[in-house]
Amino acid sequence: MDVETLQKRLADFARERDWEQFHSPKNLSMALAAEAGELMEVFQWLTEAQSAELAPGEKGWELARDEIADLQIFLLRLADRLGVDLEAAVEAKIARNAERYPVEQVRGDATKCSHRD
Amino acid sequence: MDVETLQKRLADFARERDWEQFHSPKNLSMALAAEAGELMEVFQWLTEAQSAELAPGEKGWELARDEIADLQIFLLRLADRLGVDLEAAVEAKIARNAERYPVEQVRGDATKCSHRD
Amino acid sequence: MDVETLQKRLADFARERDWEQFHSPKNLSMALAAEAGELMEVFQWLTEAQSAELAPGEKGWELARDEIADLQIFLLRLADRLGVDLEAAVEAKIARNAERYPVEQVRGDATKCSHRD
Amino acid sequence: MDVETLQKRLADFARERDWEQFHSPKNLSMALAAEAGELMEVFQWLTEAQSAELAPGEKGWELARDEIADLQIFLLRLADRLGVDLEAAVEAKIARNAERYPVEQVRGDATKCSHRD
Repeated sequence: MDVETLQKRLADFARERDWEQFHSPKNLSMALAAEAGELMEVFQWLTEAQSAELAPGEKGWELARDEIADLQIFLLRLADRLGVDLEAAVEAKIARNAERYPVEQVRGDATKCSHRD
Repeated sequence: MDVETLQKRLADFARERDWEQFHSPKNLSMALAAEAGELMEVFQWLTEAQSAELAPGEKGWELARDEIADLQIFLLRLADRLGVDLEAAVEAKIARNAERYPVEQVRGDATKCSHRD
Repeated sequence: MDVETLQKRLADFARERDWEQFHSPKNLSMALAAEAGELMEVFQWLTEAQSAELAPGEKGWELARDEIADLQIFLLRLADRLGVDLEAAVEAKIARNAERYPVEQVRGDATKCSHRD
Repeated sequence: MDVETLQKRLADFARERDWEQFHSPKNLSMALAAEAGELMEVFQWLTEAQSAELAPGEKGWELARDEIADLQIFLLRLADRLGVDLEAAVEAKIARNAERYPVEQVRGDATKCSHRD
């Protein structure tokens, strides 16, 4: 995924529609959370096992794919607006997670599996 | 961003810790929404203008960068678990948005700026 | 629960601290979603069965109780700011749900159980 | 608002439809976050000032009222399922907030206005 090129295309898309005024980091964070809420609606009444069995062509899978795309788009926009290097941020977080969650200490422990600070 | 390589690294990270059992699509959608909630906490009492002025080195910016990384990581995991081709999904959504929101019809109209179906 | 008295107390609490400026409906909706995200963090790596077994005194239960209180507080504030009669809104929604989801048509059907429009 | 009576009515409503199986605390927390996401969609592209000007009869206000009702309904359900006394939890949190945020120390300070731990 060519992050910079995508960000430029999304910025152009917004600029052409005069939507940049709406794309403050605050508003983009709301949009991300709202999209994440829509994504959850696909799964909220399914069991975990049912959620894992969704397959291409099924309505739930197609909806999830759509919401995943929306989340990626807003994430690219937000990173762009804040000047966050998305790839470097991911690498930094993976490195930190490796340090914080040593294999031997957290194996199979759900409470440690948050991937975050 | 090399999506496939990152997804493989994240899958290995989870497998080594026996965390795959927790990474059902249902649970990953919850993690995404929870991370989006944490991201919003950075911005919720800021004005839109203040949110746009955050800069590297400031605590809010660093927190936002961290949450953006978490969102990207969980998004990569979820796409992987569901077998969604992240890049293709983004391209499909951008194409649809271009069709749904013609420049002349939506210019400057916030209600049209949802980037989604 | 005396909704009006609670709303007055919460409004006084905010006014005394000069926090009313932050309590726009937009910001309160962000706070609600962020609190809901924190609530989910209690449950996100638990199975549904584990989530149902949480009991008073356990850390997860106490955290959930705290987040439920926060959600109720922000919901009271938002209803107050928008001039929404909380009780009447709930009654209207229950009546609509009864109409939309007749027992015979939706029994045991998860996809119908969204309690919403 | 008669919390206990409402909770009993909502429990009956779920039981009659055989929906109790879906109402684990985990799932109800997802539903709350998803509803909060829908609520935010009403406000996400509005300015704070615009969000404060919504009035009965306007589409945004009616949507917000609906989502507020859904949030209240799911909050009542979740408190019921977890055995949380909603009113006592709110009183405990208000007392704690009064202690944590003394008027003189936090006046006008947005960063302190989170109403939570």
